Amino acid sequence: MTDFDFTEHSHKRYNPLNDSWILCSPHRAKRPWLGMRWLIEGQQESTNDQQSPSYLPDCFLCPGNKRINGEQNPKYESTFVFANDFPAVKDQQPEYDPNSIQIENVPKDLANRLYKAQGVRGCAKVVCFSPDHSKTMAEMNADEIVEIVKTWKHLALELKEMPNVNYAVMFENKGSAMGCSNPHPHGQVWATEDVPQEPAAEIKSLKKYQNEHHACLLCDLVKTELAFKDRIVCQNDSWICIVPFWAIWPFETLLLPKEHVNSIDTISEKQQKGLAALLSEITCKYDNLFETSFPYSMGLHGAPLKEENSPMHLHLHFYPPLLRSATVKKFLVGFEMLGQPQRDLTAEQAAQRLRDLPTVHYKLSRK
Amino acid sequence: MTDFDFTEHSHKRYNPLNDSWILCSPHRAKRPWLGMRWLIEGQQESTNDQQSPSYLPDCFLCPGNKRINGEQNPKYESTFVFANDFPAVKDQQPEYDPNSIQIENVPKDLANRLYKAQGVRGCAKVVCFSPDHSKTMAEMNADEIVEIVKTWKHLALELKEMPNVNYAVMFENKGSAMGCSNPHPHGQVWATEDVPQEPAAEIKSLKKYQNEHHACLLCDLVKTELAFKDRIVCQNDSWICIVPFWAIWPFETLLLPKEHVNSIDTISEKQQKGLAALLSEITCKYDNLFETSFPYSMGLHGAPLKEENSPMHLHLHFYPPLLRSATVKKFLVGFEMLGQPQRDLTAEQAAQRLRDLPTVHYKLSRK
Ligand SMILES: O=P(O)(O)O[C@H]1O[C@H](CO)[C@@H](O)[C@H](O)[C@H]1O
Ligand SMILES: O=P(O)(O)O[C@H]1O[C@H](CO)[C@@H](O)[C@H](O)[C@H]1O
Repeated sequence: MTDFDFTEHSHKRYNPLNDSWILCSPHRAKRPWLGMRWLIEGQQESTNDQQSPSYLPDCFLCPGNKRINGEQNPKYESTFVFANDFPAVKDQQPEYDPNSIQIENVPKDLANRLYKAQGVRGCAKVVCFSPDHSKTMAEMNADEIVEIVKTWKHLALELKEMPNVNYAVMFENKGSAMGCSNPHPHGQVWATEDVPQEPAAEIKSLKKYQNEHHACLLCDLVKTELAFKDRIVCQNDSWICIVPFWAIWPFETLLLPKEHVNSIDTISEKQQKGLAALLSEITCKYDNLFETSFPYSMGLHGAPLKEENSPMHLHLHFYPPLLRSATVKKFLVGFEMLGQPQRDLTAEQAAQRLRDLPTVHYKLSRK
Repeated sequence: MTDFDFTEHSHKRYNPLNDSWILCSPHRAKRPWLGMRWLIEGQQESTNDQQSPSYLPDCFLCPGNKRINGEQNPKYESTFVFANDFPAVKDQQPEYDPNSIQIENVPKDLANRLYKAQGVRGCAKVVCFSPDHSKTMAEMNADEIVEIVKTWKHLALELKEMPNVNYAVMFENKGSAMGCSNPHPHGQVWATEDVPQEPAAEIKSLKKYQNEHHACLLCDLVKTELAFKDRIVCQNDSWICIVPFWAIWPFETLLLPKEHVNSIDTISEKQQKGLAALLSEITCKYDNLFETSFPYSMGLHGAPLKEENSPMHLHLHFYPPLLRSATVKKFLVGFEMLGQPQRDLTAEQAAQRLRDLPTVHYKLSRK
């Protein structure tokens, strides 16, 4: 029999960052696209490729416009932050009493172990990335993006001072495929009194790694990725973008500062610029991959806001759903929901494709 | 201040079955649907509501038709099982050698702990639920569905005898929203040499619960749900369908046999009939909820095939994405991917809506 080959044979890979596994079946990428899919439309996303105007009178996020609650946006010129009108978490609410779940005929301790709940306070904000309705990060330059990075930093510093807020998830849902229906470039911040599951799992892994190996898992990863090279998409002096060995989404990437820093609020001037440059590069490559405004969810994972000695190593995840074209995405369903995540190409194959793409936006090079 | 109210205040609920948390923000369900969504189309799924024919000459799954690999389907009359032409896992492949990941300049132990992988063997099958191209479980009666249950049982018994197969995930992706593009009613079985993450986490929880409380977590849950009543959707002599306290998807349900049994291959005649009746009821209610062919991923979790003493309690999960209508689904993106799952209505609210629905299919009652 031939040798084992990651690009030919089914395998699972371990994600040491959040302690999970993912199944990789690269031979499935070879199936003719028609496969069982005779109803191709079912797999399609709308491409959203018409050029939108720079200003839209009925957009809630454009400068000077009225929002749903009647407030008026200022005529902002770079970024603009406001409180989410429909926040998932609020600053103030009554305390939750676990004994309220009690009922006759069910012993108290039984109810308490099967029905555990906790109240969650916090706040939610919207961050407009640009006054220009038609722009996304992919078409913004590093100087414009550095304003977004600074806004994140500023927000983290602000949230740090708030009661009932201990962790902030800063993220962007881009594209209708990712549940975002206002194309005006914007992200969100959901800040909560507890550390949500995903960063909590990462912090646990980083802590364990530190205890066992007296080193930072992600510092070690930066080192080994620089040696392996085959998962690097792009890099600069202070940041690197890789397709992690254990990526789930077809073109998932991980952005890491080369020097250890645990939170966005403590990054240096140089790291701010480096991150902005890397964001500009990766989002442009993404758009170029299928010549479409590339949908994704992306976000930052940093230390809990009030913990200075957290082992966290600041990083950003990009989770993009597209698999084969502007209209064919990967569905994480069935086996993924009931078994474990599964992917159809290797991380190294994905990295190579992204690495080889130009960093001039396809719309510009078309002109 | 008022009392804490699950339907008003943000809280998180613990899932003791897979040891995870989920954020519940029920007040968000009250936001006017326009919210930030001025581009409503972005949130829409096609409803797929045209009636399809009972037989389609170019469907790979209809009786008598040729499949992509040239094989011809028999003229089957109830269910039909065949090997997936593009399986994610295969019966035979070379062994994976962890040392193959080594590279100059990276210490061996460092590479080994950052890049863990394992080969995965197994097999994948497709299970046609009915010869009728136009039917889904929601429109099949319990007598027809019992044939599907028997096929699952038979498959489990067969897979048990195979080498390199220790766990089988039996599932159905229904609807284009769930990556399924052939509406011919069918499910899949992906069987692997290891126990995938999701059932593995459940088995771990069940084992821990057994050790600590000398009882089965899910037997206890059946008892308490029967006492609480407010999360029950429907039930019969041998099975019960609930919206679990910790549901993630808006109308997620959990189907449990009332008497402990750990695998589909050991369920009794009565339990087979009970499961079929419950499947008929819940899928019909689902279709009636938004008067559409309701998309979902659903699947069975049972014991590892060759483990007779597994603490697993057989059950089925339904994960349906629709939130507000036939075209508006819940997106688990942004905060969900980077923080933790979040939902907009409580489990009890969802259960009530499903419970109140008729069990006559809306297409029949329209006539
Ligand atoms: O095997 P199919 O139907 O082509 O593919 C579908 O189900 C699989 C198993 O849930 C998923 O991995 C795919 O993303 C989905 O499109
Ligand atoms: O807050 P929005 O943009 O209305 O909603 C979007 O982002 C949220 C946070 O990721 C998700 O929970 C929603 O499902 C999604 O549609």
